[in-house]
Amino acid sequence: MTAQGYVALTPDTLPGRLGALSILRDRVGAPETWQVREVGDGNLNLVFIVSGDAGQAVVKQALPYVRLVGESWPLPLKRSFFEYNALIRQEARDPGSVPAVWHFDEAQAIVVMEFLTPHVILRQALIAGRQVVGLGQRLGQFCARTLFRGSDLSMTAAARKADLALFAGNVELCDITENLVFSDPYFDAPMNRHTPGLEGIVARLRADLSLKVAAQHLKLAFTSRAETMLHGDLHTGSIMVTDTEAKVIDPEFATYGPIGFDVGMLIANFLMAHFSQPGHEAAKGDRAAHQDWLLSVVETIWQVFVAEFSHLWRTERRGILYQASLYEDQGHALAAEQALADLLGRIWVDMLGFCGVEMHRRILGLAHNADFERIEDEGRRAACEARALAMGRQLMLGAGAMPGIGMVTAMARRMDKEDHL
Amino acid sequence: MTAQGYVALTPDTLPGRLGALSILRDRVGAPETWQVREVGDGNLNLVFIVSGDAGQAVVKQALPYVRLVGESWPLPLKRSFFEYNALIRQEARDPGSVPAVWHFDEAQAIVVMEFLTPHVILRQALIAGRQVVGLGQRLGQFCARTLFRGSDLSMTAAARKADLALFAGNVELCDITENLVFSDPYFDAPMNRHTPGLEGIVARLRADLSLKVAAQHLKLAFTSRAETMLHGDLHTGSIMVTDTEAKVIDPEFATYGPIGFDVGMLIANFLMAHFSQPGHEAAKGDRAAHQDWLLSVVETIWQVFVAEFSHLWRTERRGILYQASLYEDQGHALAAEQALADLLGRIWVDMLGFCGVEMHRRILGLAHNADFERIEDEGRRAACEARALAMGRQLMLGAGAMPGIGMVTAMARRMDKEDHL
Repeated sequence: MTAQGYVALTPDTLPGRLGALSILRDRVGAPETWQVREVGDGNLNLVFIVSGDAGQAVVKQALPYVRLVGESWPLPLKRSFFEYNALIRQEARDPGSVPAVWHFDEAQAIVVMEFLTPHVILRQALIAGRQVVGLGQRLGQFCARTLFRGSDLSMTAAARKADLALFAGNVELCDITENLVFSDPYFDAPMNRHTPGLEGIVARLRADLSLKVAAQHLKLAFTSRAETMLHGDLHTGSIMVTDTEAKVIDPEFATYGPIGFDVGMLIANFLMAHFSQPGHEAAKGDRAAHQDWLLSVVETIWQVFVAEFSHLWRTERRGILYQASLYEDQGHALAAEQALADLLGRIWVDMLGFCGVEMHRRILGLAHNADFERIEDEGRRAACEARALAMGRQLMLGAGAMPGIGMVTAMARRMDKEDHL
Repeated sequence: MTAQGYVALTPDTLPGRLGALSILRDRVGAPETWQVREVGDGNLNLVFIVSGDAGQAVVKQALPYVRLVGESWPLPLKRSFFEYNALIRQEARDPGSVPAVWHFDEAQAIVVMEFLTPHVILRQALIAGRQVVGLGQRLGQFCARTLFRGSDLSMTAAARKADLALFAGNVELCDITENLVFSDPYFDAPMNRHTPGLEGIVARLRADLSLKVAAQHLKLAFTSRAETMLHGDLHTGSIMVTDTEAKVIDPEFATYGPIGFDVGMLIANFLMAHFSQPGHEAAKGDRAAHQDWLLSVVETIWQVFVAEFSHLWRTERRGILYQASLYEDQGHALAAEQALADLLGRIWVDMLGFCGVEMHRRILGLAHNADFERIEDEGRRAACEARALAMGRQLMLGAGAMPGIGMVTAMARRMDKEDHL
């Protein structure tokens, strides 16, 4: 089942197996001083923190199966190869946005990288009510830079086609997205689960033909619209933060797909954080300011994405699409602006649709969000989740007519006061 | 510049080099009896007809440059690999639609295949005023079957992604389409040429910002929307016919792209045939019946495409998109029909757009159509071409609102009476 020679690391074997790496000796110290902890809390992989007298490192190793489910669900080690390839491209396209990669071993499916400290997972911070200065700005920039610079707007055609072919090999992780995001939530699929009490709204959503059609149109867009290299799993559990900094991790789902996908996934997770807050309040309304901040982050992500994408369009549009030779060089700079506005309009509609499916699948599918899961009272949790489900539906079906991000956050504010059970 | 060991065939060397192939000995006869003629009249390749005492064969060999331009425009031999891979898939997806492939030599860039006789190139037949029984039916079926069965509607996700990656290697031929179809016609590109007398309408088209934006939106669709395996160059010069049969040839431009591309290219070439007819009449109006037939073929291609695509949707939808498990199996067959109607509506809009750019590039760009080129009188030729240019613009800009194929053919009929110079 596993690649020849592959052996999973353990805290005991790691120093012996990686101790010869000069980068680790330089950055962490002599292997004799190393202390190793396994800290993986995600769904898929082993993650070790290696500490020595000179510093620390993270060693991430893929397992040949889905950690969340077990050996009954095999998953190829090559996802580590895609993660490595995505990380080095993200670093090149938005320097400093991801952990520095120090070493990659394809056969052992190991990526050795910078240990981020004192960073924590953003999702945990949001649940705790913590804020991060400049968060929406940083994430909007990350999306714009990586998505613009991975596309035919920026790359040579040959380089983009080569990367398209490379990431087309990430079949099994795309399969997870294709099934778990776009299909399973909309029928009674075997691995689904949801909070008791949601039965009514779940039945209504699964009886909604237009919604089920919209979900599959989005799936077609995800599988066929190879516009740019996506992170592919850009939620608040894939971001590490301090009070003033954010770094994006875990791009093993990277694939070529629609520009709006990452932005939509990301905004969905902030909207879910918003809807989950009443479940975390100690006293009625004590999370109101945090909710306001979460929605301000939603607005900033989109606004900065638009501003930065537009900036790159005007200054770095060197690919084969919408060439300056056809527009600016002919005295038709207005055509370039017209095309930019059209394209942002299309990305906007896509983004809202992907945002909606992500909100559904995190509540109805296999992989749930801690934002809701940490709410112990099932009744309160169901009430929060129902609002997110209702909003997801509006985003998917109303996407073409929503006039701006302020309308989205206004809707979230209003729905937070409503009973959608 | 050429691959190691590659040597271009000549009529003299062909029997010695290919005489050992048992398939050729079986189908053509002993090499001593072979007579070889080079007949390539396309833009890119060598084409030999080999005749012996037992039969005939076609030997097609790629040249390491663009035949139309010369050695100054190198073009990789691997296009032969993509042609071979496309031919065997088209044969599997629509049996009998393409010549039978008998042998492939990747290093020599040689495809050996069935000799079609008494077939002629469809474009020549159309210029001569000849008709083909069942032509629209056959071509509509070919489009529906190859385009449906090469997509995620039919294939497994892994197989489609593998083919997507394979055809992503066809960089140089895609580059030709990307430049010559979508960009060059819309500015004064070095390789462009057009008939004298068109200066006025050409200037108006190249000053039309919305048109130039639409062309680049279509280019984005072509480069990024990897929906299915396209023929990639489906014009009337890529079809061979008798009075009752049609076969599709020359898929070396094959790549993954939008479903509407092949259909739009094809219909564009019939519309251009229609607009060229007044240039070929011996007496005023003697091509009127032929024009009617050409427009009936346009209508039939689209109608049969829709009917056959819908039939395959209802009977062979076994891919990961719009699954029966989500629709029919849940008692929601109506959702499947809703999705089909949506999707055909999108393909329709795409198709009209691609149809429009093809009409422009064949008149304003590098590669012109014999339909117009054979009109010796430049004034008459320009008058015919101007109508096609005007119609191409309407299709690109009005695409979203055209209510059906009858509207397209009615527009062609009307414009044929107008002066668009």
